Amino acid sequence: MSIKDLAPLAKKMGYDGLELACWGDHFNVEEAATSQNYCRDLWALLDSNGLTCYAISNHLVGQAICDRIDERHQAILPPAIWGDGEPEGVRQRAAENMAFAAEAARKFFNCKPDQGQNDDHPVVVNGFTGSSIWHANYAFPPTSQEFIQKGYDDFAARFESILDVFEAYDVYFALEVHPTEIAFDIASAQRAVKAVKGHKRFKFNYDPSHLGYQGVDYVKFIRTFADRIAHVHMKDAWWGHGNGDVGVFGGHVDFGDARRYWDFRSLGRGDIKFEDIIVALNDVGYRGPLSVEWEDGRMDRVHGATEACAFVKALDFAPSKVAFDAAFDKKNQ
Amino acid sequence: MSIKDLAPLAKKMGYDGLELACWGDHFNVEEAATSQNYCRDLWALLDSNGLTCYAISNHLVGQAICDRIDERHQAILPPAIWGDGEPEGVRQRAAENMAFAAEAARKFFNCKPDQGQNDDHPVVVNGFTGSSIWHANYAFPPTSQEFIQKGYDDFAARFESILDVFEAYDVYFALEVHPTEIAFDIASAQRAVKAVKGHKRFKFNYDPSHLGYQGVDYVKFIRTFADRIAHVHMKDAWWGHGNGDVGVFGGHVDFGDARRYWDFRSLGRGDIKFEDIIVALNDVGYRGPLSVEWEDGRMDRVHGATEACAFVKALDFAPSKVAFDAAFDKKNQ
Amino acid sequence: MSIKDLAPLAKKMGYDGLELACWGDHFNVEEAATSQNYCRDLWALLDSNGLTCYAISNHLVGQAICDRIDERHQAILPPAIWGDGEPEGVRQRAAENMAFAAEAARKFFNCKPDQGQNDDHPVVVNGFTGSSIWHANYAFPPTSQEFIQKGYDDFAARFESILDVFEAYDVYFALEVHPTEIAFDIASAQRAVKAVKGHKRFKFNYDPSHLGYQGVDYVKFIRTFADRIAHVHMKDAWWGHGNGDVGVFGGHVDFGDARRYWDFRSLGRGDIKFEDIIVALNDVGYRGPLSVEWEDGRMDRVHGATEACAFVKALDFAPSKVAFDAAFDKKNQ
Amino acid sequence: MSIKDLAPLAKKMGYDGLELACWGDHFNVEEAATSQNYCRDLWALLDSNGLTCYAISNHLVGQAICDRIDERHQAILPPAIWGDGEPEGVRQRAAENMAFAAEAARKFFNCKPDQGQNDDHPVVVNGFTGSSIWHANYAFPPTSQEFIQKGYDDFAARFESILDVFEAYDVYFALEVHPTEIAFDIASAQRAVKAVKGHKRFKFNYDPSHLGYQGVDYVKFIRTFADRIAHVHMKDAWWGHGNGDVGVFGGHVDFGDARRYWDFRSLGRGDIKFEDIIVALNDVGYRGPLSVEWEDGRMDRVHGATEACAFVKALDFAPSKVAFDAAFDKKNQ
Amino acid sequence: MSIKDLAPLAKKMGYDGLELACWGDHFNVEEAATSQNYCRDLWALLDSNGLTCYAISNHLVGQAICDRIDERHQAILPPAIWGDGEPEGVRQRAAENMAFAAEAARKFFNCKPDQGQNDDHPVVVNGFTGSSIWHANYAFPPTSQEFIQKGYDDFAARFESILDVFEAYDVYFALEVHPTEIAFDIASAQRAVKAVKGHKRFKFNYDPSHLGYQGVDYVKFIRTFADRIAHVHMKDAWWGHGNGDVGVFGGHVDFGDARRYWDFRSLGRGDIKFEDIIVALNDVGYRGPLSVEWEDGRMDRVHGATEACAFVKALDFAPSKVAFDAAFDKKNQ
Amino acid sequence: MSIKDLAPLAKKMGYDGLELACWGDHFNVEEAATSQNYCRDLWALLDSNGLTCYAISNHLVGQAICDRIDERHQAILPPAIWGDGEPEGVRQRAAENMAFAAEAARKFFNCKPDQGQNDDHPVVVNGFTGSSIWHANYAFPPTSQEFIQKGYDDFAARFESILDVFEAYDVYFALEVHPTEIAFDIASAQRAVKAVKGHKRFKFNYDPSHLGYQGVDYVKFIRTFADRIAHVHMKDAWWGHGNGDVGVFGGHVDFGDARRYWDFRSLGRGDIKFEDIIVALNDVGYRGPLSVEWEDGRMDRVHGATEACAFVKALDFAPSKVAFDAAFDKKNQ
Repeated sequence: MSIKDLAPLAKKMGYDGLELACWGDHFNVEEAATSQNYCRDLWALLDSNGLTCYAISNHLVGQAICDRIDERHQAILPPAIWGDGEPEGVRQRAAENMAFAAEAARKFFNCKPDQGQNDDHPVVVNGFTGSSIWHANYAFPPTSQEFIQKGYDDFAARFESILDVFEAYDVYFALEVHPTEIAFDIASAQRAVKAVKGHKRFKFNYDPSHLGYQGVDYVKFIRTFADRIAHVHMKDAWWGHGNGDVGVFGGHVDFGDARRYWDFRSLGRGDIKFEDIIVALNDVGYRGPLSVEWEDGRMDRVHGATEACAFVKALDFAPSKVAFDAAFDKKNQ
Repeated sequence: MSIKDLAPLAKKMGYDGLELACWGDHFNVEEAATSQNYCRDLWALLDSNGLTCYAISNHLVGQAICDRIDERHQAILPPAIWGDGEPEGVRQRAAENMAFAAEAARKFFNCKPDQGQNDDHPVVVNGFTGSSIWHANYAFPPTSQEFIQKGYDDFAARFESILDVFEAYDVYFALEVHPTEIAFDIASAQRAVKAVKGHKRFKFNYDPSHLGYQGVDYVKFIRTFADRIAHVHMKDAWWGHGNGDVGVFGGHVDFGDARRYWDFRSLGRGDIKFEDIIVALNDVGYRGPLSVEWEDGRMDRVHGATEACAFVKALDFAPSKVAFDAAFDKKNQ
Repeated sequence: MSIKDLAPLAKKMGYDGLELACWGDHFNVEEAATSQNYCRDLWALLDSNGLTCYAISNHLVGQAICDRIDERHQAILPPAIWGDGEPEGVRQRAAENMAFAAEAARKFFNCKPDQGQNDDHPVVVNGFTGSSIWHANYAFPPTSQEFIQKGYDDFAARFESILDVFEAYDVYFALEVHPTEIAFDIASAQRAVKAVKGHKRFKFNYDPSHLGYQGVDYVKFIRTFADRIAHVHMKDAWWGHGNGDVGVFGGHVDFGDARRYWDFRSLGRGDIKFEDIIVALNDVGYRGPLSVEWEDGRMDRVHGATEACAFVKALDFAPSKVAFDAAFDKKNQ
Repeated sequence: MSIKDLAPLAKKMGYDGLELACWGDHFNVEEAATSQNYCRDLWALLDSNGLTCYAISNHLVGQAICDRIDERHQAILPPAIWGDGEPEGVRQRAAENMAFAAEAARKFFNCKPDQGQNDDHPVVVNGFTGSSIWHANYAFPPTSQEFIQKGYDDFAARFESILDVFEAYDVYFALEVHPTEIAFDIASAQRAVKAVKGHKRFKFNYDPSHLGYQGVDYVKFIRTFADRIAHVHMKDAWWGHGNGDVGVFGGHVDFGDARRYWDFRSLGRGDIKFEDIIVALNDVGYRGPLSVEWEDGRMDRVHGATEACAFVKALDFAPSKVAFDAAFDKKNQ
Repeated sequence: MSIKDLAPLAKKMGYDGLELACWGDHFNVEEAATSQNYCRDLWALLDSNGLTCYAISNHLVGQAICDRIDERHQAILPPAIWGDGEPEGVRQRAAENMAFAAEAARKFFNCKPDQGQNDDHPVVVNGFTGSSIWHANYAFPPTSQEFIQKGYDDFAARFESILDVFEAYDVYFALEVHPTEIAFDIASAQRAVKAVKGHKRFKFNYDPSHLGYQGVDYVKFIRTFADRIAHVHMKDAWWGHGNGDVGVFGGHVDFGDARRYWDFRSLGRGDIKFEDIIVALNDVGYRGPLSVEWEDGRMDRVHGATEACAFVKALDFAPSKVAFDAAFDKKNQ
Repeated sequence: MSIKDLAPLAKKMGYDGLELACWGDHFNVEEAATSQNYCRDLWALLDSNGLTCYAISNHLVGQAICDRIDERHQAILPPAIWGDGEPEGVRQRAAENMAFAAEAARKFFNCKPDQGQNDDHPVVVNGFTGSSIWHANYAFPPTSQEFIQKGYDDFAARFESILDVFEAYDVYFALEVHPTEIAFDIASAQRAVKAVKGHKRFKFNYDPSHLGYQGVDYVKFIRTFADRIAHVHMKDAWWGHGNGDVGVFGGHVDFGDARRYWDFRSLGRGDIKFEDIIVALNDVGYRGPLSVEWEDGRMDRVHGATEACAFVKALDFAPSKVAFDAAFDKKNQ
């Protein structure tokens, strides 16, 4: 859906803002970095629909930075980044694009109307990192910590220079902790922080839907990383609703398959305890946006995203602004 | 531990037999396939220790048959199979070795003393298959069913000829359903059976410790594959005992780490409901051995394997023979 | 409550339609089968209140078809069917009435205004069957499968001719799976289908409130009988809220007694997981009405039925029409 | 199994005594009531096997006293009691036999060697009552309390005279609270006590296996009827282990069917919390025998009954005598 | 907040009435007891805001009646009651004040406009009692029942004369069962009733938030004291949401500390099952007000109290009047 | 029971050693501190019974060091320490005695035969501290952190000099974390450590039975205080087995009362997960004794203590020595 169609729809569904994604026509990194007019027009479009913007998201390109590249990446990358598909080349072009996104984000937010108002937040680019060692997560054939450490070293080598660019532009990179990334639970997130030596520009985009079904204590995540949460995705999942044929590893079946142990659900219909999350976010002083990432293979998008917005507003007791992360739909981006 | 030391120890720990592994000096595939004397000497060794043998296991070589080969495989393969490490060559040599194991097993069991006695069972080689698609289990980047199907086709292409050799020698191949294999839950096991068109020589080595922590209904597994269970590993695991930092995906931390969501445990100390398993095995008419696969990073092996043997004997109400699968220790093979 | 009073009330409570019951003055089988005017007037009454109708229900007469008749049946049967109360005579007259209801339903729906519109559904008569073997459900004195089978044979003998009449009129009979009927869980429902040789006119009126407290997997019911669900009753129950004095068998105490293990509850106040039900109904492609059967001895009817209607509309994410099954109130019919 | 074979076996399995059943050749009511020699020989047989006896059980005849008689009763009644099968006649002959059992029990225990020793207990006849209203337990068709009360009145009318005979012989009747009897949970047991006006000879044979799977608080039962527990059956059951197809009502499937919600299990392998039971029995001052009633369709009887005896002895911390209730096997009496 | 500000706010938040507290300027015991004008003005103030009043609360003074007085009491008592702080003097002055509150309440309610209308209820003063034995609740050093009984005797000695004054004025004293009071669970509440010989003026102000986290069956409380519940506080708590560092005893950490096992929560956000409470209150015939006592250290008061009012109105199915107990805030009274 | 009777009994019950208590005639602080003969005779007595000793326990005197003294303390203190009962005098004499116990323990263990053997451990005196603020644990009347801190300051003031004496004699003081002490969960234990500035002689005697029923994560305790666990009490408790009348605060009812939410239970019969404890103790490198503290109001002591010893030996997989803490029985010391 083009940004022109999405903006009025998001407003109608109840949202206060958008999280703009760097694909489709929502947010063009190159144009934003180079054209003030582009930035102003985009803000004007948002403004005319009564919306604001809190963050940029650049997940798909981020995925390619550390990943072992295979044919699936071609489908999610712009042709210029994919190029000839030679893995190391793809990874380097993806890294360059992520650094460029910092500049783009800075320039875009510098054009924000009414700057200095009380809903200003630090500038954030949400994204993925990919990982060269995800395939070894089960640790068989026997996998040494040396093998694993190489993966973290690779991540650090690629991201430290990216994060330095973020520093230069006063922008934060917020990794969405997620399977297939260098960090997918608390332990691996701590190791990622350590790998980049606690770089101040390395933050997290907290999303409980990727943690709960794994058995990770997603409330503890908030308290553990109290000062590194730069963005929050309100996304739900359920688990334990399948028929026992498929476990957490997914059984090579599609989302929406009734045999699955877990699945994403429209916000409020899953098993994530959002009440505990809101309490913890308040306790650690998080004041940023709550961004609804909506994904539920079984529901109408508009119906779902509307009820999700209302759900967040009823839940949140020191009301934050609620944004819609409309661009990231794994099936239909 | 050499077979000469292990045999008396296994007897002392209470076992009736061994499951002989195709590595270390326990069972040499080439010698067994070519030398009747080797087979007779091995039986004599067992017999002199009051032990028998119910199955051969050839897991490590099996792992290389379909896997994406990396440096970790070199550590678990005999030099002759690893060769120069070129992936396709490794896979093909591993496949040849697995087929050869059928012949070795047949010849070895043909030498069994007192054949035709009532503890005879079909000849079984337990093993792994590896998988070319395990790394895609989370399905991100978006993974199509076409991509997955290629993995099953690859498995079928490699194993159908292996299974035909098993047919020729009247031996069964029993896949231990396990993460990193082509089958790791009920749904993927059904798909694997379908991939080899229900080949009659394709069976399962049932091991609940790989299913329970995933959320797979491991009792339903028995009833679903009532006629394809050729061997049973009695191995325990616990889950939900960690501190919430690490989930089912393992967080890239070692076994035995207190943060883990799950871990293998000495038999009887974990969360697997063996009572339900014994009931189900009886219900479906399983009459084969119950083979203790012992792994617990926190306990003394001998202490643990002794209590494990007693545990099985107390549990089993129509006593089966209990064997010790001593050779497969992921850390110390 | 007469249909004239109920119709405007149902509309006011939020409903789109009614499920008309064959007792009181809601739906008169004989008149509907014989008088087009009766049918037209009834539709006019509904229409003038902004309501439609999705199904006819004929539970009470159905109960007498296979039951061992005792004094309690007299209270729920029209005098003409009870007659002299001689059991076999009662059963036969009840069976004739059920077959007649198919004709009545067909003629009534043929008079539906605006036929061919997109809210048309197959014509359905919901009902009970009774059972000659319910009293033996605990199986003591020791009860053989031969004894049980006689009950299913009796059911088949009586219903096959009824179902043939339904076939003749292109109407479906939908059994509400329920204790005291020939089918009261998944296993007995499968056996009932088998008894009538899978007759295409034999369907189910799915109602989870009769399954959950028993320990039956009511979501699995939907997937097991994906193509036999012709109607859905949204009715709630709770269990495990008593004081331990009474179990599932009911302890011979009345509904509403605080000691009970389970009880019916106003929709949304019980323990049925309707979210899982809606997901499963969507997955199997059910597109029919969701009919609120409201029963809660502790609440005001109107208050309860109003909140129940709202509950269904909030739950259903591809909104179905919601009907009110007002006629069946065990205490006050 | 004849008493001559059973006695040495029971001793070998670890038991201290037997609960003698009034069928097979274990305990003949007529002979015991009329022949001192018969009683002495029976005691001599027990004594020569190192066993004693704590109670007589007369369940099957008891079942016929209040039941609606059908063909299933013929299979469990002696021909003399069944007679021509006319229901009221059967019921009356059964009642006479139960009264006669009191006399038989008194005379038998009067012959007990070494009377006055510290393991003496009051004389108890365990048994069933049947019920004329069990078939109405679900309460549909709508069932009034008047209807139910008639069942209790019928029970009282038949049992008060029986209990008076028990009073005359200083013997207690202990009803095993059980589905299909007049009492099957706490509420119905209280009503049964009230029906016989708290007759001092009306006691209970406590058996948790009939209560737990229903959801009845079987520990509360002990505290509620602290002074009416005359005998205890240690029998186990499990629940929640089926596949969801069948609920508590049993789905008309046999015991041992894997689909069942609940089943009887060998003592110690089910879900009854015997630790809580022993604590409660101690708290209320119960000092009588703990009698193992063993039933598990999946296990060898001798294997199971041996482990059950050891289980009770390990559990009981102020060791009671443990008896074996061998005669009552629903499938093989 | 002064009563003048609170009244319109309470109305705005949705409430029908207030529970007036005897501190701050909400309800002045001395003035109400002696000045009819004061009473009329207060009613006029309420009336002009569309509010009524259902009860007076006098908790803080009540706490001092039986307590071991320490420095913390000075902070919650009016100077006149604290006096020189000599413990027994404090206790006696507190007792006198509580008796005086009965007179004040009676005179105040006698001025209620439109008396005799159908929302009239008995006049109730809610309050605390304190306890001389709370410090011994763990029973170490070993604490005899004689020691405990002295505490109940002390309570009886002080309260019987207070209750006689309540009798004289036809007013009920309703103890809020709560840790640190003479009654804090069912057993201690029964003992308190017994201590005052079942005095008819001794009632309870039921508040589940003080019972649930302790493990007390708060629904059973209602049924146990069916005829002694004179007032209901709708207040929520959660438990099991901490990090395991602190248990029920509170670990000497403040409310709102994330380590706590339990905490008070805004109504509807905790773990109290209000549905079961409403059912039980209806079952026992409670017809009094439901008074929201709002306390949640993490939320804005007005936001929370507004949602709490709506929560009660949605929950209650035979709508009661909902009052706001605004005065009692442990942190900010 | 005198030490002369206890020693052979402990051996017979299976124990390897005793934890000697400073009351009764087990361990006389004054004599041990001043007479080498006393020490040698005591070791000779132990040795002649095949026992050793791992620790001294001085709980009762310790309780008086910080407590608010009342009449209950007189019953647990030697007359010389109680003196005239003036609180501050009692506290100071108790403190002196605890310091003296360090000297006594050192001199006693210096007499241990075969010193330097591999079962030597640091010398430990287990004990209680009492607390001046336990009575304020619920925090009502509102309790400030200043109030609480005074309690910790008082503890520090009294114990720092005691711990310095322990340092002088190279002995460790191990506080049994327990309600009524300055530390009773993880948070309060951390605060106690901080209060004494992390004094190296301040350790813990870990006992899970005081933590579990409160809701404290008793496994986390071990990992949190990995280097401060100097002794382990294996003691069991159960919770959630009562009838709902009494919660964690105890309802002023005695141990053994069936209404209690929790109670102590013979080892292995409660709800503490000892498997998790043994794993955690192994993980943190604890190598000291496992000392059975046996308390169960419902069981015979000898029966219970015998099964408890066997339970520990079966549980412990790197067998530790098991000692019997016989002296501390709250009811019968």
